[in-house]
Amino acid sequence: MAEPATAREAAAPAVALLKDELDIVIPTIRNLDFLEMWRPFFQPYHLIIVQDGDPSKTIKVPEGFDYELYNRNDINRILGPKASCISFKDSACRCFGYMVSKKKYIYTIDDDCFVAKDPSGKAINALEQHIKNLLSPSTPFFFNTLYDPFREGADFVRGYPFSLREGVSTAVSHGLWLNIPDYDAPTQLVKPLERNTRYVDAVLTIPKGTLFPMCGMNLAFDRELIGPAMYFGLMGDGQPIGRYDDMWAGWCIKVICDHLGLGVKTGLPYIYHSKASNPFVNLRKEYKGIYWQEEIIPFFQQAVLPKDCTSVQKCYIELAKQVKEKLSKVDPYFDKLADAMVTWIGAWDELNPTGAALPNGKAK
Amino acid sequence: MAEPATAREAAAPAVALLKDELDIVIPTIRNLDFLEMWRPFFQPYHLIIVQDGDPSKTIKVPEGFDYELYNRNDINRILGPKASCISFKDSACRCFGYMVSKKKYIYTIDDDCFVAKDPSGKAINALEQHIKNLLSPSTPFFFNTLYDPFREGADFVRGYPFSLREGVSTAVSHGLWLNIPDYDAPTQLVKPLERNTRYVDAVLTIPKGTLFPMCGMNLAFDRELIGPAMYFGLMGDGQPIGRYDDMWAGWCIKVICDHLGLGVKTGLPYIYHSKASNPFVNLRKEYKGIYWQEEIIPFFQQAVLPKDCTSVQKCYIELAKQVKEKLSKVDPYFDKLADAMVTWIGAWDELNPTGAALPNGKAK
Repeated sequence: MAEPATAREAAAPAVALLKDELDIVIPTIRNLDFLEMWRPFFQPYHLIIVQDGDPSKTIKVPEGFDYELYNRNDINRILGPKASCISFKDSACRCFGYMVSKKKYIYTIDDDCFVAKDPSGKAINALEQHIKNLLSPSTPFFFNTLYDPFREGADFVRGYPFSLREGVSTAVSHGLWLNIPDYDAPTQLVKPLERNTRYVDAVLTIPKGTLFPMCGMNLAFDRELIGPAMYFGLMGDGQPIGRYDDMWAGWCIKVICDHLGLGVKTGLPYIYHSKASNPFVNLRKEYKGIYWQEEIIPFFQQAVLPKDCTSVQKCYIELAKQVKEKLSKVDPYFDKLADAMVTWIGAWDELNPTGAALPNGKAK
Repeated sequence: MAEPATAREAAAPAVALLKDELDIVIPTIRNLDFLEMWRPFFQPYHLIIVQDGDPSKTIKVPEGFDYELYNRNDINRILGPKASCISFKDSACRCFGYMVSKKKYIYTIDDDCFVAKDPSGKAINALEQHIKNLLSPSTPFFFNTLYDPFREGADFVRGYPFSLREGVSTAVSHGLWLNIPDYDAPTQLVKPLERNTRYVDAVLTIPKGTLFPMCGMNLAFDRELIGPAMYFGLMGDGQPIGRYDDMWAGWCIKVICDHLGLGVKTGLPYIYHSKASNPFVNLRKEYKGIYWQEEIIPFFQQAVLPKDCTSVQKCYIELAKQVKEKLSKVDPYFDKLADAMVTWIGAWDELNPTGAALPNGKAK
């Protein structure tokens, strides 16, 4: 794709171009009937399906989709001993899909997420909005009160420094959810009937220095800019914790984006999240995380990466070192997680050797 | 007013209570016909009108409003030599109204702002939304992806630390504008026809450490928490700059709120901004600010207040000292401005002696 003449042009909706530059990653344990509803939007794209759980089970994919499917046997075969860094029996396994992709962009979505409607009743093309978010710059250094200044009908307001109006490259686009909100188990238990019905027509950059709870349900990112940091950790089978896979990745990518001068956007697009997961099961998976996050978050808020960390890989290895040093005292789990972070980078680099050509002919 | 049992209850719309605790401050040079449209919303409240320009001119206020009006002669009489800190021939004069108020809350609005409509066509009660914003806590230490967690139908999402869910007191509520957006002169010139038609149904806390362009058109704040920092600077007559009054106040209050652990919200409510000001006149007023802000903003981003600055007044005096030290080299104007900041605090303390009882009987 040619470089856009200006940042603003980059946000123009000439996004169908990305067809050969984006993979959709879906972790699942069941037949992918949910794709029927997404057919008009997803069919032009290549899918990477990461089958979790029993590898002997057959996952049915609706006719007409272009996909590759990996089960646990495939992951073990491809990664060998390094497969230990990929979670089992947890949707954290999706990050294997990020690693085997050869495309510049990834969109990942849960299989209980459907097409949402905007307030006018029109079906929302979530992928198109994510691509717009990723192709237009972010503005992490100063807050714009009319939100994303690169959206149609918006701009930088009075008092916004002109030197910051070019923005920075956007690495991550975090989309939201109508209907079932992404609540933790205690909130689910206290508010079982709460539904998110508020459509907030905004995209905004999360400011530099501010952490956020990144949800993996409806998430897009630029693999070239941030891929190696999008590790969803050790969750599920054999681990003391679940449902913190995306949170872990969110803390890591935000610290690294801040360090490297990359942007993270949140807001549009919405998907329709159909069914709340069981709050009692969630509580069992989450309870350690709920306690641990009180120490993990200050750790990430204070994390400083040295200047010589000039690549995502270097940043991530450094972060793994700091996790080992500072979080192992919280629980021995973090010692294991820090090792897995290093293993992940090793596996990433093995599958994505530097200098390899991308399908579109650009060298990485 | 009794302390609310929980933060969430505080956000409930029992806001009519504030009738005796809020003043509406309006700077103007003309008859206040615009109040007719606001009558159902503003009539229960006391107005403080700050008449700018020729004091011999009579400003007509529609029947039935409870108000006090101050012109330049009044300001000079009340403040004596300290009146030099109040701008003349610029809407920055409005901050005199903040100083003479004896109420806990201030709402300030420009006289070319009208009642906006929400997407369902309903007239927006801007004041009610500001009061909701001010009475519910802010969450500056971590970003909540569903925006203000204290709004009805919303909450903290998964991964939000429980220790931060109480939030902090909200000092400032920054409202937005439909129709004419608050653009600087260059953007006005480039996009003369752009109108803001996007109603974003969100309120959010501006994270700690992030500055924003605060617009004085539609702004509410808690005088007790932040009043002495709401100084709109030296603008207009005899000054080299205009249209940076609210920006200056916004930078100062944000640094001080961050230091004191107070919150700043932006988003709802919208007002309808009827008429764009003349971009050529604006350019003349703004051009130095457009240049200077490239140095002012890094100054405020790096400003650190010492621990012994435990009151707004102490913070503000310290900030004045740092302005003098670090911005005077940009232009001698900042030397004068730093002095005016100190004068302002002197005048504020004279009119608002410590320990004075508020009308509702609470000692300050």
